[in-house]
Amino acid sequence: MHFPTPLPLQSGAVLSDYTLVYETYGRLNADRSNAVLVCHALNASHHVAGLHADETGQALPKSQGWWDNLIGPGKPLNTDQFFVICINNPGSCFGSTGPMHTNPATGKVYGADFPVVTVEDWVDAQARLLDRLGITQLAAVLGGSLGGMQALCWSMRHPQRVRHCVAVATAPNLSAQNIAFNEVARRAIVTDPDFHDGHFYEHGVVPRRGLRVARMIGHITYLSDDVMDEKFGRELVGRALGDAPSYSTQDIEFQVESYLRYQGDKFSDYFDANTYLLITRALDYFDPARAFGGSLAKALAQAVAKFLVISFTTDWRFSPERSREIVKALVDNRHDVSYCEIDAPHGHDAFLLDDARYHSVVRAYFSRIALELRQLSSPLVSSSGQPMNIAV
Amino acid sequence: MHFPTPLPLQSGAVLSDYTLVYETYGRLNADRSNAVLVCHALNASHHVAGLHADETGQALPKSQGWWDNLIGPGKPLNTDQFFVICINNPGSCFGSTGPMHTNPATGKVYGADFPVVTVEDWVDAQARLLDRLGITQLAAVLGGSLGGMQALCWSMRHPQRVRHCVAVATAPNLSAQNIAFNEVARRAIVTDPDFHDGHFYEHGVVPRRGLRVARMIGHITYLSDDVMDEKFGRELVGRALGDAPSYSTQDIEFQVESYLRYQGDKFSDYFDANTYLLITRALDYFDPARAFGGSLAKALAQAVAKFLVISFTTDWRFSPERSREIVKALVDNRHDVSYCEIDAPHGHDAFLLDDARYHSVVRAYFSRIALELRQLSSPLVSSSGQPMNIAV
Repeated sequence: MHFPTPLPLQSGAVLSDYTLVYETYGRLNADRSNAVLVCHALNASHHVAGLHADETGQALPKSQGWWDNLIGPGKPLNTDQFFVICINNPGSCFGSTGPMHTNPATGKVYGADFPVVTVEDWVDAQARLLDRLGITQLAAVLGGSLGGMQALCWSMRHPQRVRHCVAVATAPNLSAQNIAFNEVARRAIVTDPDFHDGHFYEHGVVPRRGLRVARMIGHITYLSDDVMDEKFGRELVGRALGDAPSYSTQDIEFQVESYLRYQGDKFSDYFDANTYLLITRALDYFDPARAFGGSLAKALAQAVAKFLVISFTTDWRFSPERSREIVKALVDNRHDVSYCEIDAPHGHDAFLLDDARYHSVVRAYFSRIALELRQLSSPLVSSSGQPMNIAV
Repeated sequence: MHFPTPLPLQSGAVLSDYTLVYETYGRLNADRSNAVLVCHALNASHHVAGLHADETGQALPKSQGWWDNLIGPGKPLNTDQFFVICINNPGSCFGSTGPMHTNPATGKVYGADFPVVTVEDWVDAQARLLDRLGITQLAAVLGGSLGGMQALCWSMRHPQRVRHCVAVATAPNLSAQNIAFNEVARRAIVTDPDFHDGHFYEHGVVPRRGLRVARMIGHITYLSDDVMDEKFGRELVGRALGDAPSYSTQDIEFQVESYLRYQGDKFSDYFDANTYLLITRALDYFDPARAFGGSLAKALAQAVAKFLVISFTTDWRFSPERSREIVKALVDNRHDVSYCEIDAPHGHDAFLLDDARYHSVVRAYFSRIALELRQLSSPLVSSSGQPMNIAV
């Protein structure tokens, strides 16, 4: 969808003449009340569910949406009931206007000149797209990690447009340690000689070394210590227990090294370096309490939505403690909030995985929303002609 | 001290014609029983205590030893009672033979051709130096982190030479996550174009970018999440609370970024890239249980020393859980072990800091050793002419 009207950004800059790509799943109902917006995280795209097909209709390999285990017909977020929308955020590298596109003001590729975008900017861009689809209110906004920050932001920035906010594995802001990891990743990218101050496109190179290191750091923080031990342990590549290692400082010795190098290589093939900088900065900057003297409760006083907050016990990137800060601030406001702490071993990655307890919570919550919607669109009428309340 | 006899290494290679630099503090007593070997960790040197002086005897600025708060006259490890030795390990970059020295076999600087050294190799090199000093048995061996691994190794590799082993903030081996962090740091160094396959000396450059990133990663893992929040929080550099950030992906915005960049810069000024690879690999490889089918208890069955094991609650690099594995394996062997878990907020760094409870434990333990020594050298004799046992 093309937007000729400039989008004013938090930084004071504007994004002019931009395009957003998005996918939808299921059907929008007649009163346009069953829309659910799903917000994507760092390295994900608008392709949240289903498979992409080639011209003959055959499913393309490895084309599964990043949250396909959660979203689809009959799944916890059931697209037989809900109209699901996922929008690629501006600044990303999966189709929406980003650093690799041409700046209409200069006729040159943006590169490092792409304006800094924030979670608030993304939410505003998403809101405009929903306007054009004729969706004034969302049945729910749902996101995990950085996507959860966008969901929270929606509830404060456009409170009347959100009936339910589902925030998974997220935090009200980054800790100093979170920012530190982002900063190391950014330094690895920016100091790669192939970065060329963010204008590497015109040099025909990609700062692969930096992207690889950035991704390796990321992967460590997505997994719990325990699950890493379980997956890789101290196993040597191609050697039995008790065998001596090959004694090399640069060759791959341990399984975990092989895994990280592979992940880094794969990432550097498809991800844009400027996008990585932009998205990690959006993470760093998100801090709704800042404008309220540091009070998250005051920030969330603006919200009118009902909330479901989910965290995972072994997530040390966005720990349960951080989710409880959100819950506390919501309770302080007497907002309706359900909180669920899932005992899962996988660390931050758990929010993308197929955990039965986690998925049953999401399923139950969206069933409740679906029931609410049915009551809204065709209220039961008692014999006296008054609508009845049904306890849910 | 120069060693013309080649040192056989675990890898099968030998280190020939090498030099070790070391410092000593206090005086070796007449029966040579009061020697304490202190083993250094990743980026430290033999200069463990005291100050260095210029030619006029004036103390040089910033020349304080890295464990000066613990070791010295009247300090927890009291150099009025003990003769303390600290040896710079081969492969390091603080004076002992390392990658920046000339390989006598080729006449060229070693660079990346310096042989891979292990904790076992270091312990053997240290043992040879003690031989030359005429010290057959140590009153104690003491180390923190990688130094603690050397202390443990001493107790198994040269059991008769160690009366007490003090292992602080250490682990019986690295977890997959530990190895992963090391690997990312190594990749940052090795993929820096200025690394030149480890032969950067002859190109007159230093892989500073890689060293900076490596050090930044290290620093994150040395501090606890909480202490990072306390030290830096989400404070913006040069801005008051509530002020908007400057919206930049590359400029320093947050205090923690400023701290990490400074630490990275400083480190890249003095530390050798090949040494970083060697030392992180020595950490990765250390795993005394490997030769015993994964049984740490079987490995520690070789030891005869008494042990003091100390961990810090917020150390997530070498967590208390890992120290408890050591304690468990010692208890399984009915070895004499004291274990102390210090409730300190500083993470792994705590072992270098001045914590009253931690220091009082070390003081008490070394006082006990000093008392034992006095009993050894001048046993109390009862009126019947038999030595008396004194309960300590």
